[in-house]
Amino acid sequence: MRDTVDINCDMGEAFGRWRVGDTNDATLMGLISSANIAAGFHAGDPNLMDETVRIAVEHGVSIGAHPGYKDLQGFGRRRINGTARELVNDMVYQVGALREFARRHGAQLQHVKPHGALYMEMAANPELAQLFMQYMRTVAPNAYVFCMAGSITESVAMDVGQPVARELYADRDYDDSGSIVFTRDVGRPDPAAIARKVVRACLEGKVTTVTGNDIDIPFETICFHSDTLGALEIVRTMREALLAEGIRISPLSPTTR
Amino acid sequence: MRDTVDINCDMGEAFGRWRVGDTNDATLMGLISSANIAAGFHAGDPNLMDETVRIAVEHGVSIGAHPGYKDLQGFGRRRINGTARELVNDMVYQVGALREFARRHGAQLQHVKPHGALYMEMAANPELAQLFMQYMRTVAPNAYVFCMAGSITESVAMDVGQPVARELYADRDYDDSGSIVFTRDVGRPDPAAIARKVVRACLEGKVTTVTGNDIDIPFETICFHSDTLGALEIVRTMREALLAEGIRISPLSPTTR
Amino acid sequence: MRDTVDINCDMGEAFGRWRVGDTNDATLMGLISSANIAAGFHAGDPNLMDETVRIAVEHGVSIGAHPGYKDLQGFGRRRINGTARELVNDMVYQVGALREFARRHGAQLQHVKPHGALYMEMAANPELAQLFMQYMRTVAPNAYVFCMAGSITESVAMDVGQPVARELYADRDYDDSGSIVFTRDVGRPDPAAIARKVVRACLEGKVTTVTGNDIDIPFETICFHSDTLGALEIVRTMREALLAEGIRISPLSPTTR
Amino acid sequence: MRDTVDINCDMGEAFGRWRVGDTNDATLMGLISSANIAAGFHAGDPNLMDETVRIAVEHGVSIGAHPGYKDLQGFGRRRINGTARELVNDMVYQVGALREFARRHGAQLQHVKPHGALYMEMAANPELAQLFMQYMRTVAPNAYVFCMAGSITESVAMDVGQPVARELYADRDYDDSGSIVFTRDVGRPDPAAIARKVVRACLEGKVTTVTGNDIDIPFETICFHSDTLGALEIVRTMREALLAEGIRISPLSPTTR
Repeated sequence: MRDTVDINCDMGEAFGRWRVGDTNDATLMGLISSANIAAGFHAGDPNLMDETVRIAVEHGVSIGAHPGYKDLQGFGRRRINGTARELVNDMVYQVGALREFARRHGAQLQHVKPHGALYMEMAANPELAQLFMQYMRTVAPNAYVFCMAGSITESVAMDVGQPVARELYADRDYDDSGSIVFTRDVGRPDPAAIARKVVRACLEGKVTTVTGNDIDIPFETICFHSDTLGALEIVRTMREALLAEGIRISPLSPTTR
Repeated sequence: MRDTVDINCDMGEAFGRWRVGDTNDATLMGLISSANIAAGFHAGDPNLMDETVRIAVEHGVSIGAHPGYKDLQGFGRRRINGTARELVNDMVYQVGALREFARRHGAQLQHVKPHGALYMEMAANPELAQLFMQYMRTVAPNAYVFCMAGSITESVAMDVGQPVARELYADRDYDDSGSIVFTRDVGRPDPAAIARKVVRACLEGKVTTVTGNDIDIPFETICFHSDTLGALEIVRTMREALLAEGIRISPLSPTTR
Repeated sequence: MRDTVDINCDMGEAFGRWRVGDTNDATLMGLISSANIAAGFHAGDPNLMDETVRIAVEHGVSIGAHPGYKDLQGFGRRRINGTARELVNDMVYQVGALREFARRHGAQLQHVKPHGALYMEMAANPELAQLFMQYMRTVAPNAYVFCMAGSITESVAMDVGQPVARELYADRDYDDSGSIVFTRDVGRPDPAAIARKVVRACLEGKVTTVTGNDIDIPFETICFHSDTLGALEIVRTMREALLAEGIRISPLSPTTR
Repeated sequence: MRDTVDINCDMGEAFGRWRVGDTNDATLMGLISSANIAAGFHAGDPNLMDETVRIAVEHGVSIGAHPGYKDLQGFGRRRINGTARELVNDMVYQVGALREFARRHGAQLQHVKPHGALYMEMAANPELAQLFMQYMRTVAPNAYVFCMAGSITESVAMDVGQPVARELYADRDYDDSGSIVFTRDVGRPDPAAIARKVVRACLEGKVTTVTGNDIDIPFETICFHSDTLGALEIVRTMREALLAEGIRISPLSPTTR
């Protein structure tokens, strides 16, 4: 069992005057410990990145870069064929841009979490994962790579000694292999059920799968999605349940240098 | 008179498989000492940025970020209305992206030179120049800002203590006020005439204007454009003439850390 | 006094999964007679254009193209320097794209209304207005150009015989010159006051300016903004007030061929 | 054997001031009969589209739309996952934009030819081909769809009665199945060999494959690529050889209405 845990959430996923859903980053920021900040390819723009980093620092939330495929319209959820070299260069570009805003606000880069289809691609593509880790070893050797337990991303990072943080997906269901059950529409999940699942995972290291079996689930950070219906209530309920068990919510590294 | 001078040139101003003119960055890189590298808004893409930084480092050329207006089609030559905050955020984004590639190749950021219409905008817009320098003071206090002598950019940088390097425009004509005479088409300038002008500027600190007068011209770096007709011959002739006078060509700061 | 009037509103101004404000195009479509449909440069994407045209046709709403500056992030509200030729080509491109979706759904192009900063630019730029009207005369001689009374757009269109529809701005205030008083934030206007203003304009052809004077206001179409706070209530109140006076709401040309 | 044949070539594949290779559209336009004009997603911009259509009309070359994936950087050669609905909407958008420029210059739309990875995708994806043909039947029932013989594109078009033109690939090699042998680098092919291959295909309906067998090759249009090394000499040699055999080069439909 653990006495602290990190909660991460995608942040800054608007663009210009456009918003997705009715979430409010400023409110959510008070409830999480790590922010995955969109860096302009699938969402985010320079003004928003600056503002999101500023708010994160204000709340003691640690900063992660959240690079995605260059596809604003598809929100980074459509896979784009590309060589490992192209995709890593796209990530270097986005991580660098985000890190500059972090530097401007005195924050450090805690982690990198690829977004959407790119997260899935790296989880399955060893060439991509290796080239990406080589970049991380060179310029961000202490930054965590957020990943799924059991993914190529995890094993490659561990091979080269890059720190990883494995995610517990609070608002997604697991199958017996430890993979997420993909659903187009997760509906409006029950906050209390999520809270119970998360607390149990923290205390016992186990989750129940869709077929009713228990599996071990190793993780260092809890992921939830701000566009899940009822996101705000979910995170509040989850936090209270964790705190009630004496589990503190805290980032993996300090927010500022 | 001086015994060393910097030569800067815009580099990496292609996009995907597109090229402008017939210049060859790899060849030019052996002839200059500082590269202004396009960062994806008016030209450049992540693959090209990576490759251009790599070639620069290989040649001992120092790295500058060359941020522009977000206008690929117009090549950053069309002014876009924007608040100082928006424009500076656009620059932070681009400088950060470029600096990440520099870091990847063990290089440091020597300078920032805004591109095209943005260079002109900052030269005349104190609010923009001030907000930009505030950013530079925070995260790149030792990096030079390239500018025109007499511009707002220069005076604001000097007020706050940010290092500046003023440019001598090798392939452009001056008027009596020390400003560049704007011409849509500079034709194919005479390399020998440019070499004489540059050598004299280095030795005597003077250039002859279009009306035949001599004016003082303070500068730390010589700018020439890779898309001027005969660019390669121009820079070769200029280099030889400088070397013949015992003037070494050298960046303002070392390329790598 | 008149017995019918057109009501136009900007539609399809989302992008991918992003939305602006909380308006619902499907609901608004039942309350207006002409839709200005974003065509991908300042807002809109092909999927949304297709869907918006489809809904408009379903509701008997006539179709207009709403071309803007190529600036998604700035929502077409930032002026971009460009020659008349460049700007008209940008409009040809967008009008053509939108018209193809109209054709697919059996609808005709009723009108073109430039968006935001481009609407203002054409209102003041005779070269742009002339080149644009020349295009309209060639390929859409029966389509209306939506404009401000007294603008360059209006006078150039009239000179060459292109149909125009002048707009009454329901949710904006007028000054004594007949111009709109620009305000960053129009707040939440009183629907009843807007309804009274619109009805009076229809019956008497007059509006009261911010200084309390009455001016003549010629118009063929009423414009209101879907992102004005309370837009839905405003348009409902306005419609009821118009209908109560026996004024029918109807497009300028039939929706379908 | 035949007495006329169409020659098509991709045109307008630049962007802003960027060019690919050293080809000259204005020269090539005098040597072909059908132009596939890029429509802004993988290449092309509104100014270039206008100019390319104008030059085509001047030369009596018939106009085709050449829609691609929305990927300027990757030149439309990277596949992007997308639903059939999304991809067709992207094509409607591009075809409409191009057709508007054609209309402006009094030209009609002769054909549509998807570009690069999208051409390959439609050749293998029945859902995409069907939805696309449904659109073509509705708004361009007389326009040809350019395709590979034996592809899904061809069979779906024939099923619904949409005109097709099958392509003979002048500068690519065939395997025994009638498919193109994919090579990253086609080198600098021998113009005389290409001319012989094309003339024989016209006279006998046969080509020799890479394994030395003869196969039947049905086609209505000859495709060659302007970025193949020596493109200009290739097309000149091919034309002369065809004319020497009494085969005229002529579009499938008249250029203008």
